[in-house]
Amino acid sequence: MTRADWDTQRSSRARRLERARASLGDALAGKLVATGRVADLLHAVIESGDRVCIEGNNQKQADFLAQALTALDPQRVNNLHMLQSVLALPQHLDIFEKGIASKLDFSFSGPQAARLARLVAAGKLNIGAIHTYLELFGRYFIDLTPRVCLVAAQAADRKGNLYTGPNTEDTPAIVEATAFRNGIVIAQVNEVLDELPRVDVPSDWVDFAVKAPQPHYIEPLFTRDPALISEIQVLMAMMAIKGIYGEYAIERLNHGIGFDTAAIELLLPTYAESLGLRGKIASHWALNPHPALIPAIEAGFVQSVHSFGSELGMEDYVRARPDVFFVGPDGSMRSNRAMCQVAGHYACDMFIGSTLQIDLQGNSSTATLGRISGFGGAPNMGADARGRRHSSAAWLKAGAQSREGSRLMPRGQKLVVQMVETFREHMAPAFVERLDAWTVGEQAGMPIPPVMIYGEDVTHILTEEGIANLLLCRNEEEREQAIRGVAGYTPVGMGRDRRMVENLRDRGIIRRPEDLGINKRDATRDLLAAKNMKDLVRASHGLYKPPRQFRSW
Amino acid sequence: MTRADWDTQRSSRARRLERARASLGDALAGKLVATGRVADLLHAVIESGDRVCIEGNNQKQADFLAQALTALDPQRVNNLHMLQSVLALPQHLDIFEKGIASKLDFSFSGPQAARLARLVAAGKLNIGAIHTYLELFGRYFIDLTPRVCLVAAQAADRKGNLYTGPNTEDTPAIVEATAFRNGIVIAQVNEVLDELPRVDVPSDWVDFAVKAPQPHYIEPLFTRDPALISEIQVLMAMMAIKGIYGEYAIERLNHGIGFDTAAIELLLPTYAESLGLRGKIASHWALNPHPALIPAIEAGFVQSVHSFGSELGMEDYVRARPDVFFVGPDGSMRSNRAMCQVAGHYACDMFIGSTLQIDLQGNSSTATLGRISGFGGAPNMGADARGRRHSSAAWLKAGAQSREGSRLMPRGQKLVVQMVETFREHMAPAFVERLDAWTVGEQAGMPIPPVMIYGEDVTHILTEEGIANLLLCRNEEEREQAIRGVAGYTPVGMGRDRRMVENLRDRGIIRRPEDLGINKRDATRDLLAAKNMKDLVRASHGLYKPPRQFRSW
Repeated sequence: MTRADWDTQRSSRARRLERARASLGDALAGKLVATGRVADLLHAVIESGDRVCIEGNNQKQADFLAQALTALDPQRVNNLHMLQSVLALPQHLDIFEKGIASKLDFSFSGPQAARLARLVAAGKLNIGAIHTYLELFGRYFIDLTPRVCLVAAQAADRKGNLYTGPNTEDTPAIVEATAFRNGIVIAQVNEVLDELPRVDVPSDWVDFAVKAPQPHYIEPLFTRDPALISEIQVLMAMMAIKGIYGEYAIERLNHGIGFDTAAIELLLPTYAESLGLRGKIASHWALNPHPALIPAIEAGFVQSVHSFGSELGMEDYVRARPDVFFVGPDGSMRSNRAMCQVAGHYACDMFIGSTLQIDLQGNSSTATLGRISGFGGAPNMGADARGRRHSSAAWLKAGAQSREGSRLMPRGQKLVVQMVETFREHMAPAFVERLDAWTVGEQAGMPIPPVMIYGEDVTHILTEEGIANLLLCRNEEEREQAIRGVAGYTPVGMGRDRRMVENLRDRGIIRRPEDLGINKRDATRDLLAAKNMKDLVRASHGLYKPPRQFRSW
Repeated sequence: MTRADWDTQRSSRARRLERARASLGDALAGKLVATGRVADLLHAVIESGDRVCIEGNNQKQADFLAQALTALDPQRVNNLHMLQSVLALPQHLDIFEKGIASKLDFSFSGPQAARLARLVAAGKLNIGAIHTYLELFGRYFIDLTPRVCLVAAQAADRKGNLYTGPNTEDTPAIVEATAFRNGIVIAQVNEVLDELPRVDVPSDWVDFAVKAPQPHYIEPLFTRDPALISEIQVLMAMMAIKGIYGEYAIERLNHGIGFDTAAIELLLPTYAESLGLRGKIASHWALNPHPALIPAIEAGFVQSVHSFGSELGMEDYVRARPDVFFVGPDGSMRSNRAMCQVAGHYACDMFIGSTLQIDLQGNSSTATLGRISGFGGAPNMGADARGRRHSSAAWLKAGAQSREGSRLMPRGQKLVVQMVETFREHMAPAFVERLDAWTVGEQAGMPIPPVMIYGEDVTHILTEEGIANLLLCRNEEEREQAIRGVAGYTPVGMGRDRRMVENLRDRGIIRRPEDLGINKRDATRDLLAAKNMKDLVRASHGLYKPPRQFRSW
């Protein structure tokens, strides 16, 4: 075979840019496109069948461009293959209903999960695959490179340089993959400035910028009101701190989203301090700027925080704490989801998060019937990083525990902790014989069930009943009984072999609060370094500005 | 505890910049520093005990700045903590001998491995840890953020924007971590231009640029002369293609460095084509632009290549094949080691590479006595990516094979292939009872032996005697016999249980060439699509320009 033309992508790109110039005329000034002409721009540069990446992040949304996509004429543009981290807005699915797009590769669908499942069932949407964020970014450079990307930035200058401000998030990874494979990069911006506070994306990588009528949407996803933390959660946080953080001397870590881990954050300056753990645990973080971390930062617990994205209301606080956060020359935060996920995978000794269901092997999933939601960053953070080669005390101890008595080559292991109350809302048991993920997978035609964290990767399960250390289990039966042994009054918990569970407890595989020297009566909300949103504001010296929905004053 | 000052890093940065301005005077024009004054610059901005990251990549070296570091006065600057991907130049160790630096965190030391071991033994150098590349980058954002970084670029403009050209490599990851934590970024450049071909690093992220007297050194690390490929290697390549690539339908992959995988690349347009595998295997790559891949690209085997770095002599060829490679608006390649390692970890179905020693559990290492070398990117690529959630035929098949008959949750698995001849140079056996890594680790005081690829992650071992499929082994004994069964006439191979090996062969766990339908007499150099460097040049239509040391004409 000989191939005559090795430059089809660049010539296609040139044709699209030429069409845009012809269509937009005076509505195009350099790289700046008049707001009202965005539909013409998209019609000019997008072709049927294109892979189109739209920036739908955990927080930041290219919502104006998402809306503009829905206005495309499906007669002219159809069968788009959409790539996006998070499917968050109704518009993201409208384009499938309207016949503009037909295929989807993504990581997390959150609020759209039920509608997504209906569209799949109706044959209107074909899912390529569900990914962890970093995995999706990796595919952007291999077999899912976008032809066109639609991203969001805070501002552009007149040359097309972009300023992403605190919410840089996925933008660099998306733009790099698109721009350097002769794709087309379109950014919606909140404002056009003569001089940017800093350049986050060079104009050479950007083809068009368009000012959106409203600032892009940002979701305050990581804000948890301390007033809603229960005393059970305080107890579990005490067990986490004493039985895991202190036990393994965890310095570098990531926290999942939710009240369970917010309780831990709020107990660092009180309970952990009383145990003498300041400077010994939780000093280096891969974490968004959680408001619940403010008291620990102020108490000198935290040396460093690198973030996937930002958190609404934390802008001034971050700006005033540049020794702790990553900030740019303009003083605002620099986030980067790709690099923070790399750090979370490879430079952290522990991931701790919550889940909805755990089975007898320790597999856990948040997949529930009738919803196709995905798992975002959890699989990447909640997996043993088998490529890791540097050691730390925590990593070595976990590895040694899991390999004790075996002939296997010594190796460290990441701590992956699942923290759940034995019953969820509406008395649904968190422990089950069989994950709903099996049925979800069958219904959606997935080749394997959608598991968030595999049992093989989980090292500890923490409930209000105690901690099960799966690293110390020597066979499947021990593992199952260790899980049953912390599963409380759920059917799984009731099915325990009492003698075996007591034996596991004697061996330190199961540890109850009293085994850890924790008196349950001490587990009161008084231990929370902040008891409500106002306390967090106070702890921040007034720098933290909670979004309206979190304010009652 | 209350802390008064949360801005120590930025004020320290301001003091350093002020010292530089005072010391350099007219020798500083904007961000451009006069070449002859680089020592003054470094004395002004580096303080004792600083973490200093020097860009020593797999290929590109900030060699001028490395030399300048050696000229620092150890009375004024000492105890530096050096961070670098690759320790390649004598200067990288001179600073330890001179007492300027005392601690080192790195990934690979290649040619300096023996001297590094001597310095460690002499107590002149304290190794923090050895990492895989991506892991080291991750730590730059967590607990090893550089205070000062010294990087290399092709060109700067007068504002300090950088153009890295085809060898972008590690630069973005290093600069981002440093610039956004109030560190200081210094770039050596080959030239200063009024207008850059493209901006790779915005000037906002750069503090100083200095023109080096000579262009930075680049090592042509991935060039293999086809004339040196043996017929044994051709045979092994045939087995790889038919028994693994074809068997699992591997589309997305990474190749390690060396003649074994170069032979595979050169057999794609001949042997793989004859098996009807074009379009079915090896279409999407995470790989530097290997010259040996030219014939496969020309034959239409390859759809896409994303690269860690570039390869000397391939510039014009890459420029002429923008449909295949990632290129910038200027036409030259865009590489990015961090993102390519992400892709290699998460978006590839297979890693195949060579090693020096394999033990009976399948653990392999290139660590040899008296040398501390590290493993670069291999651990990241050669580990099962346990966070991966998207599926492919290859990944599902590997996962199903390893879990057949077990109760474990279904899961896919990455193919990790170790390809070795049973004897290395000087008749050293590649298969051993005990890796030298054990002794190397003890001598260097490492907490665990330096293993490159763990047996748990290896799926296939390929030698001239056949393929051992470890996925199908059901216990340690089968695994050991499968390895012995392809270990030829090494003592490990001679120690096989012949009946058990024949049983493994009957079960398809061991496959000999004849089991794969390969006639050893067909394994001749005639199958190589290029038999020497001149053939590669011819295949490239004269676009590939081999470096002088690879040219005999």
